[in-house]
Amino acid sequence: MTTHLGADLSALAGDLPAGAVVTDPDILAGYRQDRAQDPDAAVPRAVVRAASTADVQATLRWANAYGVPVVPRGAGTSLSGGSGGVEGGIVLSTEKMRAITIDTTTRTAVAQPGLLNVEVKKAAAEHGLWYPPDPSSFEICTIGGNAATNAGGLCCVKYGVTTDYVLGLEVVLADGTAVRLGGPRLKDVAGLSLTKLFVGSEGTLGVITEVTLRLLPPQPPASTMVATFGSVQAAADAVVAITGSLRPAMLEFMDRASICAVEDMLRMGLDRTTEAMLIARSDAPGAAAAGEIATMVQACRDAGADEVFATDDPEEGEAFAAARRMAIPAVERTGSLLLEDVGVPLPALPALVSRIAEIADRQNVTVAVIAHAGDGNTHPLIVFDPADEDMTARAQVAFGQIMDLAIELGGTITGEHGVGRLKKAWLPDQVGPDVMALTRRIKDALDPNSILNPGVVL
Amino acid sequence: MTTHLGADLSALAGDLPAGAVVTDPDILAGYRQDRAQDPDAAVPRAVVRAASTADVQATLRWANAYGVPVVPRGAGTSLSGGSGGVEGGIVLSTEKMRAITIDTTTRTAVAQPGLLNVEVKKAAAEHGLWYPPDPSSFEICTIGGNAATNAGGLCCVKYGVTTDYVLGLEVVLADGTAVRLGGPRLKDVAGLSLTKLFVGSEGTLGVITEVTLRLLPPQPPASTMVATFGSVQAAADAVVAITGSLRPAMLEFMDRASICAVEDMLRMGLDRTTEAMLIARSDAPGAAAAGEIATMVQACRDAGADEVFATDDPEEGEAFAAARRMAIPAVERTGSLLLEDVGVPLPALPALVSRIAEIADRQNVTVAVIAHAGDGNTHPLIVFDPADEDMTARAQVAFGQIMDLAIELGGTITGEHGVGRLKKAWLPDQVGPDVMALTRRIKDALDPNSILNPGVVL
Ligand SMILES: Cc1cc2nc3c(=O)[nH]c(=O)nc-3n(C[C@H](O)[C@H](O)[C@H](O)COP(=O)(O)OP(=O)(O)OC[C@H]3O[C@@H](n4cnc5c(N)ncnc54)[C@H](O)[C@@H]3O)c2cc1C
Ligand SMILES: Cc1cc2nc3c(=O)[nH]c(=O)nc-3n(C[C@H](O)[C@H](O)[C@H](O)COP(=O)(O)OP(=O)(O)OC[C@H]3O[C@@H](n4cnc5c(N)ncnc54)[C@H](O)[C@@H]3O)c2cc1C
Repeated sequence: MTTHLGADLSALAGDLPAGAVVTDPDILAGYRQDRAQDPDAAVPRAVVRAASTADVQATLRWANAYGVPVVPRGAGTSLSGGSGGVEGGIVLSTEKMRAITIDTTTRTAVAQPGLLNVEVKKAAAEHGLWYPPDPSSFEICTIGGNAATNAGGLCCVKYGVTTDYVLGLEVVLADGTAVRLGGPRLKDVAGLSLTKLFVGSEGTLGVITEVTLRLLPPQPPASTMVATFGSVQAAADAVVAITGSLRPAMLEFMDRASICAVEDMLRMGLDRTTEAMLIARSDAPGAAAAGEIATMVQACRDAGADEVFATDDPEEGEAFAAARRMAIPAVERTGSLLLEDVGVPLPALPALVSRIAEIADRQNVTVAVIAHAGDGNTHPLIVFDPADEDMTARAQVAFGQIMDLAIELGGTITGEHGVGRLKKAWLPDQVGPDVMALTRRIKDALDPNSILNPGVVL
Repeated sequence: MTTHLGADLSALAGDLPAGAVVTDPDILAGYRQDRAQDPDAAVPRAVVRAASTADVQATLRWANAYGVPVVPRGAGTSLSGGSGGVEGGIVLSTEKMRAITIDTTTRTAVAQPGLLNVEVKKAAAEHGLWYPPDPSSFEICTIGGNAATNAGGLCCVKYGVTTDYVLGLEVVLADGTAVRLGGPRLKDVAGLSLTKLFVGSEGTLGVITEVTLRLLPPQPPASTMVATFGSVQAAADAVVAITGSLRPAMLEFMDRASICAVEDMLRMGLDRTTEAMLIARSDAPGAAAAGEIATMVQACRDAGADEVFATDDPEEGEAFAAARRMAIPAVERTGSLLLEDVGVPLPALPALVSRIAEIADRQNVTVAVIAHAGDGNTHPLIVFDPADEDMTARAQVAFGQIMDLAIELGGTITGEHGVGRLKKAWLPDQVGPDVMALTRRIKDALDPNSILNPGVVL
């Protein structure tokens, strides 16, 4: 079909509540980029602030009729350029869709997509329940964005990622049809696993207008353990030993560069000569936590840890977790960041870290590595100065080389942030032409006019 | 395309190892039905016993060229008629594809589809690891069949269903292309969630030729609790209280009819006047299990349980679990079974059980109800005498009415056994025409000649 980039916005506005279509340039500018700050992102023609499923339907019907690109957007915290504007397109924002209801008997929540992750957690907690997925951005990202990206976080090593909690969705398809998939049933195999297909589809197959989430009983208080190592290999050995014997509630890794950056910022007495640090947690009920912590401490000692410290004091434990959580801001103080999200099978972690150091040397940029070690998902942080054109280019080269390296090591270019626009060029190298062709067949079947988030994934 | 039901089998045989194509009528007869014993199942034209992915590819290339229906088949334990033969079609059996490798560092298994679930569990256990999903048929069903149906089991109330353990698949598409999806990575969001789409697709989108599975550290020893109640409502109240405060490793329900059937068979002293029984387990590590059991005991008492008994003795605990596990065989001693698999939101369980009793009365058949109570998935067992034509017809009516009831109560027609051919007629009532149309679009995109398991789901 022909694309009508000049399609009449007033026709769309007529189908929506007053004020839903925004064209004020100052406001539009704020919807150009997401947190990946893709310089190629375009100012959208308009932003639609949908207040209901019907608004989303009207918008997609209009866009589909005229072939106008639509970028679904939650809070715009994407680190892969998934929610940045495209030339001539509109941004469909869910920020006004913020209702939630909790059902304690089925332990489920039904939330509109624009609610923040932290608000879902709070609503659940008010009913004595827990919504586990905890991306580091949980205070600023939406539950719809989480579902669209299948977001991960610190606790997923034990509790799984977003898709493990999505029981049902309401999705508006490209042609404006709204479908209900799944529902508040913990087990349901009636028909294809369509709910799971839409989770992680990054806005390319439909717009999520409602999420039904599984909730858990409250998490027991956690105990924390920290260990430092003289080599990444020793830390990786400890991780393998730990995860082979129990399920930690958190198991995070920091390399020397990130330890030093945190120490520069927080002055908490971290040893700047240590090559690797692990921060682990147990939330096993009651006395069992102490047992699990003891097992983890022993595993670290056996792997040759220099120092090991454990505490069941929540505040003390929080201080250690904070060191890990502050790693990104701490490294960010030294320059702009290109944030990688590569995953490798655990045994390849030492090779990944040492070969990233080689890439950093070659490109003459700093790369600090933090990782959700328990699931092999790493975040190499490439530091650069955007004012320095040459350095920016070298950082870009390193960004690509680290993805190439992850693929070579049998890993993935993205463990949780998604492909978006920034990693699209590497996807075929990871999955191969046949999987790309399969992806294209599904995309074409569901969005024949390619209006939904064009340029993302495909 | 034209369907060539008479397509030359010798051309296919020429592409496969000697003996792979079976046409011996005595052998073919054994591949006609699955455990659902659908009387409408047809003897296949031939059975292909594939020994490799290449064999599966050759078979699908041939079938796709001639439009020959292909029924993928593991062990044929389907309870929904998903692996029964179709007129003029071939059965593609995975029974010879039985390799497995375990990687302890990534805690993953790579298995061919024909391996039994119990063999996967054993292989993992030999390396000190655990594969949780435990359909009651675990000793007789294949891991490929489990992935194709997204099989559940007793431990999924805490540990999730098959899809939660499938990290990667090799799938042969209808045109013979083999694709690798996902892999031994605990977190991977590169591209659409295709792995999850194929899990639970019941052989309608592709043939699974390899499964990469997530394994866990070994399960701690479990403690067991049993409680009896004067009403289904009281038992349901206890279930809500339990699952709102902790995550039991098992939480099963039996109604009076199934209790009596088990007592008839095992003479273990169960009270025949009790209306409902719950069997629950905790596998919390160390002393925490006792705490969880105490919480569950209290929840049952608070809900008005008549008798509550708890034990941390594994053998004693096993005896109670055996009562639940023997429920199907025990009820089966009283006649042939139509086995339902309906799920409802937990608060609807009492209504489901009492209205099933009304249906049973009206149709003059016995219906015993057992349930994975923790996740609302119930198995009403309709007893009938196949020699009695009228009764068989009434049982069929009850079968449909129970699915209608589940849909009316906001539930699902199938929690874990799949839609297959037997429940297909009810699927549109549950999901509606738009979801059916969406399903059809995906089916047509992936299997344009409709050769893969025609008549299943769609
Ligand atoms: C400091 C920081 C820390 C982070 N830490 C983590 C982390 O630990 N784990 C992690 O997984 N991510 C992390 N992220 C990335 C980001 O927060 C997640 O990807 C998050 O899920 C995005 O949510 P959002 O509401 O901001 O979505 P957006 O950025 O607005 O959109 C993200 C993608 O989802 C699509 N989308 C959004 N809403 C919908 C909808 N309703 N329907 C269909 N498609 C939709 C968009 O088109 C886009 O492709 C972090 C980001 C930052 C800035
Ligand atoms: C006594 C008994 C108890 C049971 N208990 C449970 C239970 O607790 N939970 C549960 O979930 N199920 C249960 N079942 C049902 C059944 O065992 C499961 O559905 C099982 O997953 C089927 O495995 P199978 O190897 O027998 O598959 P089959 O019956 O051969 O096939 C099942 C479906 O999967 C497809 N299929 C099989 N292999 C492949 C492949 N390699 N690629 C693509 N498609 C394929 C078939 O086409 C068919 O649609 C039970 C069955 C019995 C007889």
